Amino acid sequence: MIIVMKAGAAKKDKDEVIKRIKELGYQPHVIHGTTRDVIGAIGDERGKLALQSIESMPGVESVVPILQPYKLASKEVKKEPSVIRISDTVAIGGQEIIVMAGPCSVESEEQIIATAREVKEAGAHVLRGGAFKPRTSPYSFQGLEGEGLKLLAKAREVAGLPVVTEVITPETVDLVAEYADIIQIGARSAQNFALLKKVGQAGKPVLLKRGMSMTIQELLMSAEYILAEGNQEVILCERGIRTFETATRNTLDLSAIPVLKGKTHLPVVADPSHGTGNYHYVAPMAMAAVAAGADGLMIEVHPDPEHASSDGPQSLKPAKFAAMMTQLRRIALAADRRI
Amino acid sequence: MIIVMKAGAAKKDKDEVIKRIKELGYQPHVIHGTTRDVIGAIGDERGKLALQSIESMPGVESVVPILQPYKLASKEVKKEPSVIRISDTVAIGGQEIIVMAGPCSVESEEQIIATAREVKEAGAHVLRGGAFKPRTSPYSFQGLEGEGLKLLAKAREVAGLPVVTEVITPETVDLVAEYADIIQIGARSAQNFALLKKVGQAGKPVLLKRGMSMTIQELLMSAEYILAEGNQEVILCERGIRTFETATRNTLDLSAIPVLKGKTHLPVVADPSHGTGNYHYVAPMAMAAVAAGADGLMIEVHPDPEHASSDGPQSLKPAKFAAMMTQLRRIALAADRRI
Amino acid sequence: MIIVMKAGAAKKDKDEVIKRIKELGYQPHVIHGTTRDVIGAIGDERGKLALQSIESMPGVESVVPILQPYKLASKEVKKEPSVIRISDTVAIGGQEIIVMAGPCSVESEEQIIATAREVKEAGAHVLRGGAFKPRTSPYSFQGLEGEGLKLLAKAREVAGLPVVTEVITPETVDLVAEYADIIQIGARSAQNFALLKKVGQAGKPVLLKRGMSMTIQELLMSAEYILAEGNQEVILCERGIRTFETATRNTLDLSAIPVLKGKTHLPVVADPSHGTGNYHYVAPMAMAAVAAGADGLMIEVHPDPEHASSDGPQSLKPAKFAAMMTQLRRIALAADRRI
Amino acid sequence: MIIVMKAGAAKKDKDEVIKRIKELGYQPHVIHGTTRDVIGAIGDERGKLALQSIESMPGVESVVPILQPYKLASKEVKKEPSVIRISDTVAIGGQEIIVMAGPCSVESEEQIIATAREVKEAGAHVLRGGAFKPRTSPYSFQGLEGEGLKLLAKAREVAGLPVVTEVITPETVDLVAEYADIIQIGARSAQNFALLKKVGQAGKPVLLKRGMSMTIQELLMSAEYILAEGNQEVILCERGIRTFETATRNTLDLSAIPVLKGKTHLPVVADPSHGTGNYHYVAPMAMAAVAAGADGLMIEVHPDPEHASSDGPQSLKPAKFAAMMTQLRRIALAADRRI
Repeated sequence: MIIVMKAGAAKKDKDEVIKRIKELGYQPHVIHGTTRDVIGAIGDERGKLALQSIESMPGVESVVPILQPYKLASKEVKKEPSVIRISDTVAIGGQEIIVMAGPCSVESEEQIIATAREVKEAGAHVLRGGAFKPRTSPYSFQGLEGEGLKLLAKAREVAGLPVVTEVITPETVDLVAEYADIIQIGARSAQNFALLKKVGQAGKPVLLKRGMSMTIQELLMSAEYILAEGNQEVILCERGIRTFETATRNTLDLSAIPVLKGKTHLPVVADPSHGTGNYHYVAPMAMAAVAAGADGLMIEVHPDPEHASSDGPQSLKPAKFAAMMTQLRRIALAADRRI
Repeated sequence: MIIVMKAGAAKKDKDEVIKRIKELGYQPHVIHGTTRDVIGAIGDERGKLALQSIESMPGVESVVPILQPYKLASKEVKKEPSVIRISDTVAIGGQEIIVMAGPCSVESEEQIIATAREVKEAGAHVLRGGAFKPRTSPYSFQGLEGEGLKLLAKAREVAGLPVVTEVITPETVDLVAEYADIIQIGARSAQNFALLKKVGQAGKPVLLKRGMSMTIQELLMSAEYILAEGNQEVILCERGIRTFETATRNTLDLSAIPVLKGKTHLPVVADPSHGTGNYHYVAPMAMAAVAAGADGLMIEVHPDPEHASSDGPQSLKPAKFAAMMTQLRRIALAADRRI
Repeated sequence: MIIVMKAGAAKKDKDEVIKRIKELGYQPHVIHGTTRDVIGAIGDERGKLALQSIESMPGVESVVPILQPYKLASKEVKKEPSVIRISDTVAIGGQEIIVMAGPCSVESEEQIIATAREVKEAGAHVLRGGAFKPRTSPYSFQGLEGEGLKLLAKAREVAGLPVVTEVITPETVDLVAEYADIIQIGARSAQNFALLKKVGQAGKPVLLKRGMSMTIQELLMSAEYILAEGNQEVILCERGIRTFETATRNTLDLSAIPVLKGKTHLPVVADPSHGTGNYHYVAPMAMAAVAAGADGLMIEVHPDPEHASSDGPQSLKPAKFAAMMTQLRRIALAADRRI
Repeated sequence: MIIVMKAGAAKKDKDEVIKRIKELGYQPHVIHGTTRDVIGAIGDERGKLALQSIESMPGVESVVPILQPYKLASKEVKKEPSVIRISDTVAIGGQEIIVMAGPCSVESEEQIIATAREVKEAGAHVLRGGAFKPRTSPYSFQGLEGEGLKLLAKAREVAGLPVVTEVITPETVDLVAEYADIIQIGARSAQNFALLKKVGQAGKPVLLKRGMSMTIQELLMSAEYILAEGNQEVILCERGIRTFETATRNTLDLSAIPVLKGKTHLPVVADPSHGTGNYHYVAPMAMAAVAAGADGLMIEVHPDPEHASSDGPQSLKPAKFAAMMTQLRRIALAADRRI
């Protein structure tokens, strides 16, 4: 931490700050500037009481953190990229780009099995489908819940695809973990810390979506919650942030991909379906994500988007999805990856 | 809903849209415009499958919702303001402005009791204090949990103040409800729908904070989750939204107060401590909130902010809080309210 | 500036950074941390080539500025608040709160004179009215231009109110300065630096509006452009920033008032009409701005908002404006100010 | 426009709205809903007084625009993509992706000529370089101005590359047009309407950057200003919008590329240098932009970023730029384009 003193701060105030820095277990180091002094507090600030409280002391202008607050997610701790195995044939974080595709919600056996077959046929590696749905309105369809999990398991069987599905409460983590190959934490749960701790103990890979107003650093802190429980298999997912722009449902922040790649060893995937909210923009943004270095994609595919229970406007029909996969393969090759 | 067709959409496409509108139980009504047609779908769109999926149909440019998606929270359903009784002497939503004050976290018996006495003395009506703390970092202090609840109960006893405290998981709702006079849903939980449903059944007033990137309409939808479970005692809290400005921790959106007052019968309070993140700005923004029509305030007060476990920089010392209360009384009177 | 080195940066890299700091005329000061080194660069960084370029050097993680980049606008340079005289009877920045009211656009002699009389009668101190209008659409009404200025001068004569009006190009600054008592720089021009320099030379007080995506620091930098030309009479205006919220046209950031009061000696006014975009919210936000410490207000008033050429939805009718002024007087008194 | 009436609006209010719609030259069309009425106003709303003012009328809840407010920029007016010729060999908007590269500022003859040669050698099509610089601080380097233009002309001669450079005031448009092959309007000038009109008359292609808080629709409205003056050669540039994320200088909104492609015939380029503010992220985001369908790129290249007068941290060294060009060629081919 760097403590910036006010211009003309009293000596007494500086002495108090120095005393407090020592009390908290850091070593103070004063730099006398031309208009104000700056005090470095040397020591690892993670896991201790925050130096931030020094900001309340007289004569202090601001407190500037220097260290990143995450450890286990950091490349400083683990330099080589993490490759997370999902099944015998599927791993995320290596040279192959993993495509997870399927409907927003599991709606019926027919729907999920037909979709699973189609996306498998088109080259998807993982089947996505929601059984527990966090919906803005209490009057909207909330998912088939346990029944949806069973249908997912059936579709996995039939299509031979591992399954990713969302969990929204700590008490259903064990149930979801029983069925899912990857447990998804949705954007609205990305700072549900009790849920993060619980999936950290579930023994399954976790796909962690970035919250709508979460900074990249906060996303890594949420990953840290899972890692700190002993679960090293965390996949990060950029799915759009909330901005003033209304032409898209969210603003897909693809620069988060290279930023994350510079800071963490964890794999990073992108979700252009939620990121744009409009099926017209899914294919170009999927290609852009791959070109930017994404390790995978999440794509909403529905056999009949006009009758979908949720997220119809952003779902691709199977034929469009297959066409996109063909294009993606070419982009992946050009980026020295494969799909 | 209004369905806007593309300029030059084919007759076939329009017919399909009209057919689909009828299928979904609405009555279509076509307006032929100079460059494009617009189709109104008449009927209450709440509680039905979303017309939004029509956006996927050929020839459709966009789907524009007309009705607000909430019912129970709306002034259309209940015109007169709701007054929520907290204790024999405290009610929120009436002429009196209710001040909830106390530390971010309960840290010790001495701390919470001393603070409770001081804020009571200065005129606060409710004691705030966190026992379960949602923290961005797994390495930060996470609250005293059950022990914290007991200390809050003790402080209530000693100071004679009802207590508001946060709940962060569905499974602790009953425990928290046992101790709290008002159950708080924090900004990070404002779209934790399972938690909202559970506090909707807890039989205690709920203070619902606006999430950092939540629109006012989404806040009302989250309130609707609680109301729909039969709990009519919901207090809304503006606590700052996330914007590009970094001079304050969040941007306190005080215009949310008159906007909410125009849309809902529920009382609205403001939290200038979290809203600004800096104790220097708390008093002016508290006064502004009262002038804008807030029914109450949440204020962080700590006897020793420099040693606080959390949120030191935004906490007022008791003497500053008392001085602010004196100013607030004058503003309240000028606004035909009282504190 | 503080230069943060990467963990494990090579000695050679550190030596290069130190050399470069010296070359740029600063004095380096190294702090050896537990995981990384931090190098302070001592010296006034304003007016020199930016140290920011050091961020490109090998081994450097980030460069953190310490000093505020503005001088003349800063309280460090001038401690007492600036009081800016507009006319014999009107000054902004003192104990009296100044209300500037009038239509968005000057539309006709009848309209502007009637409005001037009504706002004067209700207690306004300055007449506002746009002659040059920056409009998003080339097809919208662009203002009466020179003719509008003449009508404003006539209204000033008749009502006895000084006049504030916007200038949008450097070449019309002299013309506008001839007619205006305060020259307004609108939100869209707030980083039109050529225009800022020109009004810095115009010898008239300047009302500088905050741009829609401008930080408070950038607003002060734009003020610095005017001050650096020798014009000390700058009034800052908070008028709403752009956020994700759509219930209001902008988000009026009232916390900017106390933040600015802590950083600068310049007076600060608020514009709740543009800040909210909806006349229902103007009075509560005007009261809130006064309670937060604003030195003045800008309010749109139109005799017939339903027929206004621009900004009808956010304009008050004269009777509503007069009622608001009565309420504002009470709030001002409660805040130890007067109107 | 669609006028949404309040639930239970009086007949008298509806009649007044209908009367006003007719007065303004539109044809009213009422839809009686289950809880409220909705009134369509039929007619082309562009070029007329805004119906928006109806929002002030009693009984009106909101006014919802249906038509896009731009004409000339719209695909409805011109279906096939515009290809804009810059020189005998360079055209933007066709199958070839155009790369504009060079330093943020022209600093010296040596610097600009060396850079021009290097970027030409690496395959760039256009030389970029700023002579007039809009800088946040009055104390920062403001560009070599006229002298910079002459150096650009010399570099064009030597390297055989057309030149793009920024203009910041209406009165220098003619001067800049004399030297530039493409006139650039920077993000801070994107709503400087007087400047837009002037470059609309300059007879040279214009590169229009999106403002930091500009919606895509507003960008098209600014383009409309130029088009409406008779200049059909407008290139749109996505260069990052302002959001809460601080890991990058701006958030590069690549989804703007497919959104714009769906709405306008104008070519679209991306500027990953300003979009990210960090040279590490330039190559991945450049590749992503091409994959998303960009017609061109603007890239900052500087022979010695550590000594750059501006924007050092986001500038590539020539060798890195050349390496990126090699990668870009592969991505372009995979996207059925070429560089």
